[in-house]
Amino acid sequence: MRLQPKELLLLFVVGAAGGLIGDAGHVQAGTTTYLDDATPFIWESALWFPILVGLATASIGELRLWLGPPRPGFDATVAVASIAAVLAIYAVTALVYDEPEGPATTLIVMLAVLVACWLGGGTPALVCGLAAAIVGPVAEIAIVELDLAEYAPSADSLGGVALWLPALYFAFGYVAARLAEFLVARR
Amino acid sequence: MRLQPKELLLLFVVGAAGGLIGDAGHVQAGTTTYLDDATPFIWESALWFPILVGLATASIGELRLWLGPPRPGFDATVAVASIAAVLAIYAVTALVYDEPEGPATTLIVMLAVLVACWLGGGTPALVCGLAAAIVGPVAEIAIVELDLAEYAPSADSLGGVALWLPALYFAFGYVAARLAEFLVARR
Amino acid sequence: MRLQPKELLLLFVVGAAGGLIGDAGHVQAGTTTYLDDATPFIWESALWFPILVGLATASIGELRLWLGPPRPGFDATVAVASIAAVLAIYAVTALVYDEPEGPATTLIVMLAVLVACWLGGGTPALVCGLAAAIVGPVAEIAIVELDLAEYAPSADSLGGVALWLPALYFAFGYVAARLAEFLVARR
Repeated sequence: MRLQPKELLLLFVVGAAGGLIGDAGHVQAGTTTYLDDATPFIWESALWFPILVGLATASIGELRLWLGPPRPGFDATVAVASIAAVLAIYAVTALVYDEPEGPATTLIVMLAVLVACWLGGGTPALVCGLAAAIVGPVAEIAIVELDLAEYAPSADSLGGVALWLPALYFAFGYVAARLAEFLVARR
Repeated sequence: MRLQPKELLLLFVVGAAGGLIGDAGHVQAGTTTYLDDATPFIWESALWFPILVGLATASIGELRLWLGPPRPGFDATVAVASIAAVLAIYAVTALVYDEPEGPATTLIVMLAVLVACWLGGGTPALVCGLAAAIVGPVAEIAIVELDLAEYAPSADSLGGVALWLPALYFAFGYVAARLAEFLVARR
Repeated sequence: MRLQPKELLLLFVVGAAGGLIGDAGHVQAGTTTYLDDATPFIWESALWFPILVGLATASIGELRLWLGPPRPGFDATVAVASIAAVLAIYAVTALVYDEPEGPATTLIVMLAVLVACWLGGGTPALVCGLAAAIVGPVAEIAIVELDLAEYAPSADSLGGVALWLPALYFAFGYVAARLAEFLVARR
């Protein structure tokens, strides 16, 4: 492991908390619905959801450090702003899920591109963004296939999940990668 | 007073004008409704509303200068952009008032955090943001209690006002504080 | 011509592609409807629409260079981000077209102001933004008058086109001007 245990834990906690906030918006808006009540719930989410998002956040952070040396410099303001940016996009997806999927997807894709341009980071960051954009939706498609949850009919055109979901995960991957860089920089 | 009379007047005018624009959006969307027609109206607002916002803007600007020395440097572009940012968030609140309050509030909170991270300013700015986030909603709760105006049922869960209202005022407080700094810097 | 043929072609292609993406959102959401099926269609657009947007993009780029020397410095990230920003605003117009026109217009105007403040460029950029904000809506009003297309009743208060349309074109003009500067800078 290139991140220290406490750093991995911090990424896990940040990711799990962010997943809880974002997922609550999806559930409250009706973007997604949990179909299986067998597992415990925390706030609006099945317990496994924030755990998965936390693990994904720590994994992408670790991946980032395997892809090359992190950029120097620690900026708490950018760290906070990057988390706020991805949570803002997450909330927008909850608010536009019942709008036509075309312009909703265009908006989320462009916001994700703006986050990527803002945070930068070159090829390693891009790989983290793309990895998240692939693995995240594939995992959610599996969740839908397992009848654990479903997306609303207005937002399920990508194999059962929303067409904008890869863009949301793309932004998430960039942010997780940037946070990992900051954790190393502040050692 | 640490701001000169003409500077206080300018903050008052900017705040009153911004309040008029933002409030017109709230009234036109149905976010808020004036219940008392006894006072004169200007555009969509009861006359006292832009006056209160103007006074709040000047007060926060004055508060900023009592909290510590302002940052040097005058940047008209940032001044204009900061006003535009808070009016954009104001307009978003008008557009999402009938959406589920959870994700709508998450969006407004995160946009306010992004504005705060962008404008910076340390503890004095944070105090101004928090002061606005407390005093503004309390004043509006009093307005609702006095039956002068009401928020729509979909946006009244914070003692009669919207749950996202403190976040909107938080961003407003940061912008008012930044404008006060700019006014001193351009003397 | 101050832009080289290949540079003009690139601006045309970028503008036409962006016009196709943005217009698809408008058509899918119901913001606009084509009334004349006599011309060929590409994706959701009558063929002449992306051609017009492409020509407008190249024209504004050329106009920018006639207005004064371009700023030095090439930044691919800013170029990509500026295109993403205007497409994001375009998508927002599609999503809010059936909201009250007042706050929707305030939001689009303020987002356009933020784009202008971000890209900067002084008087030449402002002229490009204003030229686009006038010529674009006038051309679309003519299109509506010719019964080739129409805006939804909730977004047609500016002589048949949407009240927020000049602001969308204003942002577009700033971006086209910035892209022209970048093209010269990377020669």
